[in-house]
Amino acid sequence: MPVRDELPVRDELRGKSPYGAPQLDVPVQLNTNENPYPLPEPLVERIAERVREAARGLNRYPDRDAVELRTELARYLTRTAGHEVGRANVWAANGSNEVLQQLLQTFGGPGRLAIGFEPSYSMHGLISRSTGTGWISGPRSADFTIDVASASAAIARHRPDVVFITSPNNPTGTAVDAETVLALYEAAQAAKPSMVVVDEAYVEFSHRPSLLPLIEGRPNLVISRTMSKAFGAAGLRLGYLAAHPAVVDAVQLVRLPYHLSAVTQAVALAALEHTDTLLKYVEQLKRERDRLVAELRATGYEVTESDANFVQFGRFDGEGATHAAWRRLLDQGVLVRDNGVPGWLRVTAGTPEENDAFLDAVRALKKEQGS
Amino acid sequence: MPVRDELPVRDELRGKSPYGAPQLDVPVQLNTNENPYPLPEPLVERIAERVREAARGLNRYPDRDAVELRTELARYLTRTAGHEVGRANVWAANGSNEVLQQLLQTFGGPGRLAIGFEPSYSMHGLISRSTGTGWISGPRSADFTIDVASASAAIARHRPDVVFITSPNNPTGTAVDAETVLALYEAAQAAKPSMVVVDEAYVEFSHRPSLLPLIEGRPNLVISRTMSKAFGAAGLRLGYLAAHPAVVDAVQLVRLPYHLSAVTQAVALAALEHTDTLLKYVEQLKRERDRLVAELRATGYEVTESDANFVQFGRFDGEGATHAAWRRLLDQGVLVRDNGVPGWLRVTAGTPEENDAFLDAVRALKKEQGS
Repeated sequence: MPVRDELPVRDELRGKSPYGAPQLDVPVQLNTNENPYPLPEPLVERIAERVREAARGLNRYPDRDAVELRTELARYLTRTAGHEVGRANVWAANGSNEVLQQLLQTFGGPGRLAIGFEPSYSMHGLISRSTGTGWISGPRSADFTIDVASASAAIARHRPDVVFITSPNNPTGTAVDAETVLALYEAAQAAKPSMVVVDEAYVEFSHRPSLLPLIEGRPNLVISRTMSKAFGAAGLRLGYLAAHPAVVDAVQLVRLPYHLSAVTQAVALAALEHTDTLLKYVEQLKRERDRLVAELRATGYEVTESDANFVQFGRFDGEGATHAAWRRLLDQGVLVRDNGVPGWLRVTAGTPEENDAFLDAVRALKKEQGS
Repeated sequence: MPVRDELPVRDELRGKSPYGAPQLDVPVQLNTNENPYPLPEPLVERIAERVREAARGLNRYPDRDAVELRTELARYLTRTAGHEVGRANVWAANGSNEVLQQLLQTFGGPGRLAIGFEPSYSMHGLISRSTGTGWISGPRSADFTIDVASASAAIARHRPDVVFITSPNNPTGTAVDAETVLALYEAAQAAKPSMVVVDEAYVEFSHRPSLLPLIEGRPNLVISRTMSKAFGAAGLRLGYLAAHPAVVDAVQLVRLPYHLSAVTQAVALAALEHTDTLLKYVEQLKRERDRLVAELRATGYEVTESDANFVQFGRFDGEGATHAAWRRLLDQGVLVRDNGVPGWLRVTAGTPEENDAFLDAVRALKKEQGS
């Protein structure tokens, strides 16, 4: 029986493991930054209704350009992000991962380089590699913020074609200010014509406003977004970007034709009709996130500033202790994420009950360790 | 205002146009090989029901491994393709284009080569290029079949890493026999360890059985399928493959995590529940396809043997005459496809009424040309 690596797979894939958070069947799952609130029932009904309508034409290919959906996404951005954008500024795909893949196929690829400031969203590096783009792990300060001087120096040294800035950053939680993004944009353009991708997957949970207005006059700046978190639709796989229309034109060269199904478009449109309700859940989650931060600190943990629906907490003394803490929480029925940041774990803000269970577990952990 | 090519896009994308059939608003659209039959109403209701259920858990990520869907796809293949396969043999993605993209990311890519025998499905070459895989246009005989000797010679000369065989072939329509596939598989393995991908997007319409049984004992052979055609679900974007489990393991290394939405999985499962009804439509379409072939021949056209839901007809004298014929049919309200095969056009088998309209138009065309 042949096994995977006996097939003629690419050399750089040999011995690798697929990406994916371990899913364990425990009562309190706070490991994948999902929104804990199911979609409200009126929205569920509206989804069924719009999908029924779409299903009647399912024998036909979907709208290849997703015109209605991009129009509504642009309307949402205009309303919430303080900057007017139109359909021509917006592109959508199956999750922000596919958006990023299309960007890397267009602006990265073999012979080109991308940089991110790590620890950050690990898919930036993984999709870079799977598209043949070289990956540079750029620096981050001890407090997990981006130091403009050292980040700019890394850009000047490596001259990347694509620069990733994650704001709020995952897994650390902190948003990036506009001045930092502008400085890195300038550093990147000074090194060579290059694209700067600001990944705002969690921006709706931030204390800071979206960086969307920065695309004005900066055709090489892209904002990436998702409906997985704020819209409570991780199962839908709908990511999108906002940028100069030339960027939207460019990704059409690599997008698979009809990449976005009629059903995905229908469900996303239904969810966008219910934006106001869904953003109320976001407000609840922000309050719960702030409560987690306050309670963790009160219990004696260190916490990284969070603008997201998750909180990075620690510190545990080394890799062994970090994993032991993760394990001890799991023993108490609470699954958090060990993202491989030594000394730190990440917990997603869940429902008040889930967060209570988590807080009980970390308090017990602190007692065991002797505070 | 910058335009696309002023952005730092990859050199090989400059000046290119996105893939896509032109969509024109005419009464009879027979240009994209869609199934003309809308899904039956009981299936539409079942889709709404399953999506409603999925929507209630949409805040969570979908089943990353699509276990239920792959199980049902395996059951369908076992039942219809004369060979028993299980979930471990099957992988699914957003359209067969994404399946092919994942295969090329795994087994092709920079420094590697893929070959197809053209004219064939043009996305094989396009996805090869967008994944950095070199593309070789292999030969086809004048009657559009694959000549084993010259195809094997091309394989021996270029030593490709991936070999595409489209059966039935698109846009020409003819299926490939097992002996040809086996000969090319041997030729490919003799040259170097390589993957042979048999694209069976249209196989349910074929006079010949599926080539699926050939995967037995051949870990480097992959069968690619879609629900777009036989299942009348082009709008759903559900492609899949069947192969040795090691192949399924291998593509996990490049698949985007959670690439297949909970909604897509739900709709595909609903459609699979209605397989028998949908396959009855396939039988109707096969009869209509055979009628198109007979009538076209009776009218004095040449027709390539068709095992698909479309028919290649001609011959028109040169590129100008081919386009003029396409235009003349369009003037009569019938949109067919000019795939760039000099002297030939492609028409999709539509409803009996659509096919009548098409036949009237080609008869009028023949009269104009003086038969």
